[in-house]
Amino acid sequence: KIYRIAVIPGDGIGKEVVPAAMAVLDKAAQVDGSFQFEWATFPWGCNYYLETGKMMPDDGIEILKGYDQIFLGAVGMPALVPDHISLWGLLIKIRREMQQSINVRPAKLLQGLPSPLRNPNGFDFVVVRENSEGEYAESGGRIHSGQEEVAIQNAIFTRKGTERAMRYAFEMAKSRRQHVTSATKSNGLTYSMPFWDEVFAEVGRDYVEIGQVSNHIDALAAFLVMKPENFDVIVASNLFGDILTDLGGAIMGSIGIAPAANLNIERKYPSMFEPVHGSAPDIAGKGIANPLGQIWTGKMMLDFLGYPELGLKVLDAIEATLAQGIKTGDLGGTATLQDVTDAVLHHLQ
Amino acid sequence: KIYRIAVIPGDGIGKEVVPAAMAVLDKAAQVDGSFQFEWATFPWGCNYYLETGKMMPDDGIEILKGYDQIFLGAVGMPALVPDHISLWGLLIKIRREMQQSINVRPAKLLQGLPSPLRNPNGFDFVVVRENSEGEYAESGGRIHSGQEEVAIQNAIFTRKGTERAMRYAFEMAKSRRQHVTSATKSNGLTYSMPFWDEVFAEVGRDYVEIGQVSNHIDALAAFLVMKPENFDVIVASNLFGDILTDLGGAIMGSIGIAPAANLNIERKYPSMFEPVHGSAPDIAGKGIANPLGQIWTGKMMLDFLGYPELGLKVLDAIEATLAQGIKTGDLGGTATLQDVTDAVLHHLQ
Ligand SMILES: CC(C)[C@H](C(=O)O)[C@@H](O)C(=O)O
Ligand SMILES: CC(C)[C@H](C(=O)O)[C@@H](O)C(=O)O
Repeated sequence: KIYRIAVIPGDGIGKEVVPAAMAVLDKAAQVDGSFQFEWATFPWGCNYYLETGKMMPDDGIEILKGYDQIFLGAVGMPALVPDHISLWGLLIKIRREMQQSINVRPAKLLQGLPSPLRNPNGFDFVVVRENSEGEYAESGGRIHSGQEEVAIQNAIFTRKGTERAMRYAFEMAKSRRQHVTSATKSNGLTYSMPFWDEVFAEVGRDYVEIGQVSNHIDALAAFLVMKPENFDVIVASNLFGDILTDLGGAIMGSIGIAPAANLNIERKYPSMFEPVHGSAPDIAGKGIANPLGQIWTGKMMLDFLGYPELGLKVLDAIEATLAQGIKTGDLGGTATLQDVTDAVLHHLQ
Repeated sequence: KIYRIAVIPGDGIGKEVVPAAMAVLDKAAQVDGSFQFEWATFPWGCNYYLETGKMMPDDGIEILKGYDQIFLGAVGMPALVPDHISLWGLLIKIRREMQQSINVRPAKLLQGLPSPLRNPNGFDFVVVRENSEGEYAESGGRIHSGQEEVAIQNAIFTRKGTERAMRYAFEMAKSRRQHVTSATKSNGLTYSMPFWDEVFAEVGRDYVEIGQVSNHIDALAAFLVMKPENFDVIVASNLFGDILTDLGGAIMGSIGIAPAANLNIERKYPSMFEPVHGSAPDIAGKGIANPLGQIWTGKMMLDFLGYPELGLKVLDAIEATLAQGIKTGDLGGTATLQDVTDAVLHHLQ
């Protein structure tokens, strides 16, 4: 079997970590023996924008639809291209147009990776982030100018979008530790979040065997630092999921390691696999970026393609590399991107 | 000199920690010798609501205006009174009507208080939270029902409100470590946060001698875990400030210790001093709540009244108590509220 993958390395360190992860995925396919990857690389991103005035060609979305999945590095060169153009012209555009309405982001204490927490207690949770609407609805505007100026940002939550994220979270909890936490803020945001709470309660009635609790986002952020081991599946809005998953990366030891999957759960369009970290222009091109976030993201693609056991082997190879002390600078080590990649390849068999 | 303070113990542990902090403040006044507190206690809150149908009387705001400052415990009994009624009927109502548009919340590694971070590196920062508008504008609504239902929440940022918070942050940085970080999310929230960024840049031009940087809220939350010592003053919107200050409490070792001040910086109306923690109904009435958040909040009232050196003495007494190992359960100790209060009183001289 052949999987045709559209690869968008993107900007900054994306260009370095993506090839590293592709090498690991090719090795994984070899280890499995039943399938192969066929990669098609697209040079879209900020440099493309600086040349053409567009982040991707007009028929970019159509082109991507011809592939099984999308493997993306990072997008953004804020010094040269405003974020609104780069991110909304590529990353968020693909999430939207491919209806990748669920963003799955695990956080897990890895062997060999020192957490900044004193007692990380082997936490292992997954954030299911609503990925298509809510605070990112791109609705709003401004009136007046100078001292009278007012800016408005509208968060829009649909029943369908909210319910979809929650059902996905409950289904996921079934094969995990049977617990879902909903990130709310209904005491402060008195229109969107009471609605969110109602949908959570209602969907929860279909899953009475699964533990369910709501935490306000402020308290929940604090709990991730104080008792991360208490969480199994967390379901969160687009913005809250964004914040909680960077926190998840932080308590793991580095955002450079946190993986993510933007899923079209209906499998009508390709899903997009893209780590939590950004393009990190400050360290780009030096060969010192941490490829583990991208490699772990590749593991999530293996899971989604139906090879969870192979995925576990990749995660084991990541842990074995860390346990050996082969770490990039963000993890306090001195290894290069190549050293880390070679070690993962070596351990993967 | 006599300061007339309106005291609202409120709900849950508020009723226990407020008297403890009043005792400490009375002792502080004695130590100083130049002023006294005159306390007027109001039994407003959820019990009042269950009896009268209101969280405070109709002329409550007028009554409070007759006092110099307001000292509040905690509000909320979610099992009996919906948050929207209790919080918006008292806490947020007072913040609004008294134009307490700035919420100041320090986070500092205290001697004797083990942070959940492995290397907390003596962090010491203050969050200046916009406290009157933004995401808490209470604007929004719903349309349709069932599968078609849509909920909208509007965040409203005015130039005046945004600029006020930023100026306050820059002024504060002058007498601290000369650095302000702005919490943004202009890459995701493309109307409110670009506006926020523009105002930050513009106000910043009046403070070229102060270091200034913007961080996206997701990265900033992660930095508070990874490098909290990098921050001095953080200026944040209502919602982002809410999240960052609970995180601040968490890295200090407990939200039970985090203090806050809702300031009417124009000093036209009383300000309100209220800790970050909530009413904690689960441990209320047992004499085991941590009074240090409320006591530290009292220290902020001393600062605002013009007694910063006396305020430092209170903070020293808190640290001496912790250093002695006299800690409530939330800090891993076995001391009661009374033990902790007695120790602070003992160390304050
Ligand atoms: C209780 C709630 C409405 C409040 C807020 O979000 O402002 C609280 O979390 C706080 O931080 O004071
Ligand atoms: C770059 C930004 C728009 C994006 C987001 O907020 O979704 C990023 O932070 C992420 O988490 O993927």
